[in-house]
Amino acid sequence: MESIVTDSSAVHFNEQAFTELLNHISINSYSKIFVLVDENTKIHCLPIFKNMVNFEFILLQITSGEIHKNIETCVKVWNDLSNLNADRKSLLINLGGGVLTDLGGFVASTFKRGINFINIPTTLLAMVDASVGGKTGVDLGVLKNQIGVINQPQMVLVVPNFLKTLEERQLHSGFAEMLKHGLIESEAYWQELKRVSDFENLDKLIHDSVLIKNEVVLEDPTEQNRRKTLNYGHTLGHAIESHFLEDEDKETLLHGEAIAIGMILEAYLSTVVTGLTQSSLKDISETFLSRYKKVSFTDNDIEIILSLLKYDKKNSHGNINFVLLKTIGDTQIDVKIDSELFIEAFSYYKHL
Amino acid sequence: MESIVTDSSAVHFNEQAFTELLNHISINSYSKIFVLVDENTKIHCLPIFKNMVNFEFILLQITSGEIHKNIETCVKVWNDLSNLNADRKSLLINLGGGVLTDLGGFVASTFKRGINFINIPTTLLAMVDASVGGKTGVDLGVLKNQIGVINQPQMVLVVPNFLKTLEERQLHSGFAEMLKHGLIESEAYWQELKRVSDFENLDKLIHDSVLIKNEVVLEDPTEQNRRKTLNYGHTLGHAIESHFLEDEDKETLLHGEAIAIGMILEAYLSTVVTGLTQSSLKDISETFLSRYKKVSFTDNDIEIILSLLKYDKKNSHGNINFVLLKTIGDTQIDVKIDSELFIEAFSYYKHL
Repeated sequence: MESIVTDSSAVHFNEQAFTELLNHISINSYSKIFVLVDENTKIHCLPIFKNMVNFEFILLQITSGEIHKNIETCVKVWNDLSNLNADRKSLLINLGGGVLTDLGGFVASTFKRGINFINIPTTLLAMVDASVGGKTGVDLGVLKNQIGVINQPQMVLVVPNFLKTLEERQLHSGFAEMLKHGLIESEAYWQELKRVSDFENLDKLIHDSVLIKNEVVLEDPTEQNRRKTLNYGHTLGHAIESHFLEDEDKETLLHGEAIAIGMILEAYLSTVVTGLTQSSLKDISETFLSRYKKVSFTDNDIEIILSLLKYDKKNSHGNINFVLLKTIGDTQIDVKIDSELFIEAFSYYKHL
Repeated sequence: MESIVTDSSAVHFNEQAFTELLNHISINSYSKIFVLVDENTKIHCLPIFKNMVNFEFILLQITSGEIHKNIETCVKVWNDLSNLNADRKSLLINLGGGVLTDLGGFVASTFKRGINFINIPTTLLAMVDASVGGKTGVDLGVLKNQIGVINQPQMVLVVPNFLKTLEERQLHSGFAEMLKHGLIESEAYWQELKRVSDFENLDKLIHDSVLIKNEVVLEDPTEQNRRKTLNYGHTLGHAIESHFLEDEDKETLLHGEAIAIGMILEAYLSTVVTGLTQSSLKDISETFLSRYKKVSFTDNDIEIILSLLKYDKKNSHGNINFVLLKTIGDTQIDVKIDSELFIEAFSYYKHL
């Protein structure tokens, strides 16, 4: 499958990915190679990785989960690197989902003011979402990705073989980002994804998603205009995810599950503000509800979620900026929303 | 005094500095402006700053001192920014010495993946050393500047008027970096600095130092070659500084005091390895000993200091890379040193 060249990086697929990795290692005289895993990827993905490579490396391990995507975990990895005499010519390979590649990328970008790193996303979400764009970072308290930098890995290896190690719920979570790529960029891709009934052979669709995201990011790397469209569903989705993460009585929502709800809510807003048709809203709502479980929100939940919106990174000058749909496949950015519309949107979702 | 244009930034001097700042503020529609101070600059420098500006700002405060230049302090400032609704269009102005501008620059570079910042160094050290090059960062334990990024401020304001707020010991600390600029780049500048008997009017000499550093950094921003020369005296100097910071029984050395010792020790190494003459060594030793107090090192101190060398950021592949002098004004980079020579150098220093 053809490699996708990104801004000063590249995404390589399947068998070719490891060929490119081995080639990169052989032409760069790294002083030490570190591989970062969590307890899950250590068991399920590291054996596959070991089978494919011929170089020595030092294993570093963190604990999985969004609640560990924080500065304390960074301090642990920075100290591990220091204690193991990592220097500026060392390489960090991040083998894991988006939490691990986001955190590992930030750790590498800031260790001794920056060492090289390579991402090997092992979840569908990380393959289609975190693989291009160079976003690295960690959470600050419950606020997602508040701390980070934009910095490109040397390369990204997308090996769908790793998906066999995942539970179905994780695959659905990543699939939500692919559906988003259809909604913001291509109705044809949206229709194609809707026909997917199992996750047996996603290779081509993953490649399509990476292509879409890469095209958007290349045109607008610093998120002034078009890149903002990738945040569709994320403004409310992130706030919902944060709230469910913070509230110990709530079952934690996976990222894709939270933004699936965000995409329904923001599709409702789109019908009111940017002219999305009722039939498209129905299509979007039914597609997500058939794939993701419906969640109940109390009035108190909604109040907290709306209060979290003010920390959204896209805000400026006190305004909350939304990306909405004009049609399936076309968007409008920097839309301001009256607060009573949020209540209407949650009410629409509740009565679906 | 003429502004110095650096890599995607600029250093402005004296009265013109505030004109440039006010102009920058008026043409950028920042959502909020934050000013970061410590308890010293709040008392001594903030009143001067307030007198010169006409815009509203929100004050943020940290505790002064190298031991607070760490991730915990960053977390405090990140949280302050979050709680005060800073967004991506906010500006952070760092008003303080090198600890504050290094830390504030790192906080700004990583908050929501990067907001604009402006540095106003208030110490001589920060004016001549931290004002160009875009190095930001904090310490990890006792290891100096292990965590950071290279990122340029929007501008740097060098206002020697702030130096009137400093104690003489602080001025001497900064003066050591100026002497270093002479040693690595210009014998004429070194001779000129040796004639300085008080710190009443340093404006032109500060401008010269910034020019020297800027020329070096512009030619080699990523520290592959020439920029390494700025580390003269710092390999041993940093290790000495770290050890005296860590050991509670030792009086803390200021940065310039530690690298003054480092410059004598590395001048000794230079006579053995890179052909520095004995008379130059004598000149360097006498110049520093006449301005900086002599420190006693026990055998145990020396052992610890040498063990700290392995964490130096310039190391690669397990080698400790030194910058040494060929003559006063000319250097050689990437020099490896046999460990017995270190003992000789400390012995030379002891018997001065």
